[in-house]
Amino acid sequence: MAVYTDVTDAELQDFMARYDLGQVTSFKGIAEGVENTNFLIETTRNRYILTIYEKRVDQNELPFFLNLMGHLASRGMNCPTPILDQNGNSLNQLVGKPAALVTFLEGLSVTRPKIEHCAQLGRSLAELHLAGQDYKATRKNKLSIEGWAELNAKVEDQTDSIGRGLTQLIHDELHYLTEHWPNDLPQGIIHADLFPDNVFFLGQKLSGLIDFYFACTDAFAYDIAICMNAWCFEAHNEFNATKARQMLSRYTESRPLNQAEYLALPILCRGAALRFLLTRTYDWIYTPENALVRPKNPDEYIAKLRFHQGVKSSAEYGLDPIS
Amino acid sequence: MAVYTDVTDAELQDFMARYDLGQVTSFKGIAEGVENTNFLIETTRNRYILTIYEKRVDQNELPFFLNLMGHLASRGMNCPTPILDQNGNSLNQLVGKPAALVTFLEGLSVTRPKIEHCAQLGRSLAELHLAGQDYKATRKNKLSIEGWAELNAKVEDQTDSIGRGLTQLIHDELHYLTEHWPNDLPQGIIHADLFPDNVFFLGQKLSGLIDFYFACTDAFAYDIAICMNAWCFEAHNEFNATKARQMLSRYTESRPLNQAEYLALPILCRGAALRFLLTRTYDWIYTPENALVRPKNPDEYIAKLRFHQGVKSSAEYGLDPIS
Repeated sequence: MAVYTDVTDAELQDFMARYDLGQVTSFKGIAEGVENTNFLIETTRNRYILTIYEKRVDQNELPFFLNLMGHLASRGMNCPTPILDQNGNSLNQLVGKPAALVTFLEGLSVTRPKIEHCAQLGRSLAELHLAGQDYKATRKNKLSIEGWAELNAKVEDQTDSIGRGLTQLIHDELHYLTEHWPNDLPQGIIHADLFPDNVFFLGQKLSGLIDFYFACTDAFAYDIAICMNAWCFEAHNEFNATKARQMLSRYTESRPLNQAEYLALPILCRGAALRFLLTRTYDWIYTPENALVRPKNPDEYIAKLRFHQGVKSSAEYGLDPIS
Repeated sequence: MAVYTDVTDAELQDFMARYDLGQVTSFKGIAEGVENTNFLIETTRNRYILTIYEKRVDQNELPFFLNLMGHLASRGMNCPTPILDQNGNSLNQLVGKPAALVTFLEGLSVTRPKIEHCAQLGRSLAELHLAGQDYKATRKNKLSIEGWAELNAKVEDQTDSIGRGLTQLIHDELHYLTEHWPNDLPQGIIHADLFPDNVFFLGQKLSGLIDFYFACTDAFAYDIAICMNAWCFEAHNEFNATKARQMLSRYTESRPLNQAEYLALPILCRGAALRFLLTRTYDWIYTPENALVRPKNPDEYIAKLRFHQGVKSSAEYGLDPIS
C-alpha cells in the first residue's frame, strides 16, 4: 500500500518505449498491493497497471505468476493480463528492479462484503480453480505446514508480547495440524490470498480478481477456507453462516466438492487461520517503526482460529452435507 | 505522497450520492500531494480527483483555494476545477474530514525539467498571474518574512545538528532580508509552490498546474523567484542561466516585468530559498521517524541560498535588463 520506488519521467519513457501502447498521458503511484510498488498509467491507447517488484518477491517466481495471469485471462477470467513488449516479454526491468505491465481492471473492493458479494466470490473462486486446471507450471505453497513451522521458529520467543498464551496457542495448533492435515484432497492452482481488497466489484457484480503473487499449487478446498475466514466473519469476528453457505453453494454449482473436501473444511479453516495469524504476527514483530506500511493486528486471526477450534463438523458452519 | 485516510466503499458511495456523476467504476488512493489524501475516482461519466484535507490545512481557508481554482479554470487555466454537488457546494465532508472533488488533469510531471519545460512554465506562470487579477478574495502569505522568523524560532536551537553554521546562516539571512525586503512590487494571486511535481506536461507541452494549497496574495516576482529556484538549478545545484532566461522571456511575453521587479530578483530568490530552507529544516527536525512521508533534505536550499547571496544583480542570472 505504498510507493517504494520512485520513477522519473525519463525512466518511464524509456520503459514504455519497449511497448507499443501509444503516448503516456498520466502516471500516478497508487496505494494497491502490499508487497510491490504499483502505478496507474494512462496512454492514448488504454489504461495499465505498472508493477515494480520489491525485494520480498522472488524474481525467479515472477514468470510463474505472470504466465498464470495470462493463462487465466485466456480462459475468460477477469484478472490482470500481462502486456507483452515488442520482443514478446512480459517481464522487464525498471530502476534496476523487475517490472511488468498488466491490464487495468474496473471495479472497487468492498470493505464489508455483503451476502451477495460472498456468493459472487464463491462462483469466481470455482471458476479460477477450473481455469487453472490446465496450467502446466506448479509452485509449492511455501506458506503451508512446513512454512508455518519455520515462521513460528522466528517469532515464538516474542509472541507472548502480543498476547498472553499466544505462544502456547500457536505451538499446540501447529502440533495438531501437523498430525491431522489432509494431504489427499483435490489440488490445483489456488489464489491463496483472495481477501476482499483483491476482489473488485461493479455494483453487486464481481468484476475482477487481482494480486496473484501468493498463487500456488495446493488443495482447492484450502482456498475456500482462506476465503471463509476473509469474507464470512463480521466486524467483531462473529462467523456469518449465511455468507459461508452462499459462498459454498455458488462455488459448488461450478465445482462440486467431494466428501473428503467437505469433511476437511474445519481443519482447513484452522490452518488458514493459523497461516495468517503467523504472517501477521511476524509482520507485527518485525516491521520497522518507520515502515511505510503499518502491519495488521494479529488479534483478528487469534479469534478466528479459536472459533474454528470449537467447530466439530462442517455442518456447524451451516453448510449442507455432501450427498 | 501518502494515503492518510482510508475510505470504505460504503462511505464513498454515500459521498458520491451527493453528486450527479454516474456510477463509480474505480477508486484508487494515489501518491500525489504531500499534505492531503488523494484518490483517483472513475465514474461512468469521467475521472475525478477526490481530496481529503488533513489537519495541516486550515479548514477556514479551503473556500479560498477551491474558489480560486474555479476562478482560474473559468479564465481558461488548466487547473483542477472543483465539482459542485447537487446543492451547489464544492466542499463536503468524508470520514469526518473536509473533502472536495475536482476535475482530473492529464499529464506527467517532469523530474528533471529541460529548457523547453522551463519556457512553458514561464508562460503558464504569467497566465496564472493575469488570470488571478480579478479574483476578489485575498490571502496573506503566511510563509513570508514574519512566518520565516516564527519558523526559525522553532528550529534555531537545533539547526546546527543539520549542518555546522546553519543557525548563523539563517539568522544573518533573516536579518538581511528583514532590512531589505521589497514591499512595493506588483502583487496578486501567486501559486507559491510551483515545483515540477505540481506541473503536468504532455510531451513538451504544459498541460496543467495542480496543488493550489499554498496560493496567496504576494508579489508576482516572488512567484518567479520560487520557480527559478525550483526549475533552474541542475542536479548538483549549479544555476542554469539558459533555463532562467527562457522562463523569464516567456513570462514577460505575457506579463512584462517593471524595473523594480527586475532589480529585486536576487533578493526575492534569496527569500524564496530561505522559505524552503526553513520549511524543510522544520520538517527534517519535527517529522516523526515513523511518518509516511520522508522529509526532504534541506541541504539543497542551503546551496541555493548561498548561490543567490553571491549574485549582485539580475544580469548575473543571464537575464536581459528591462529597458
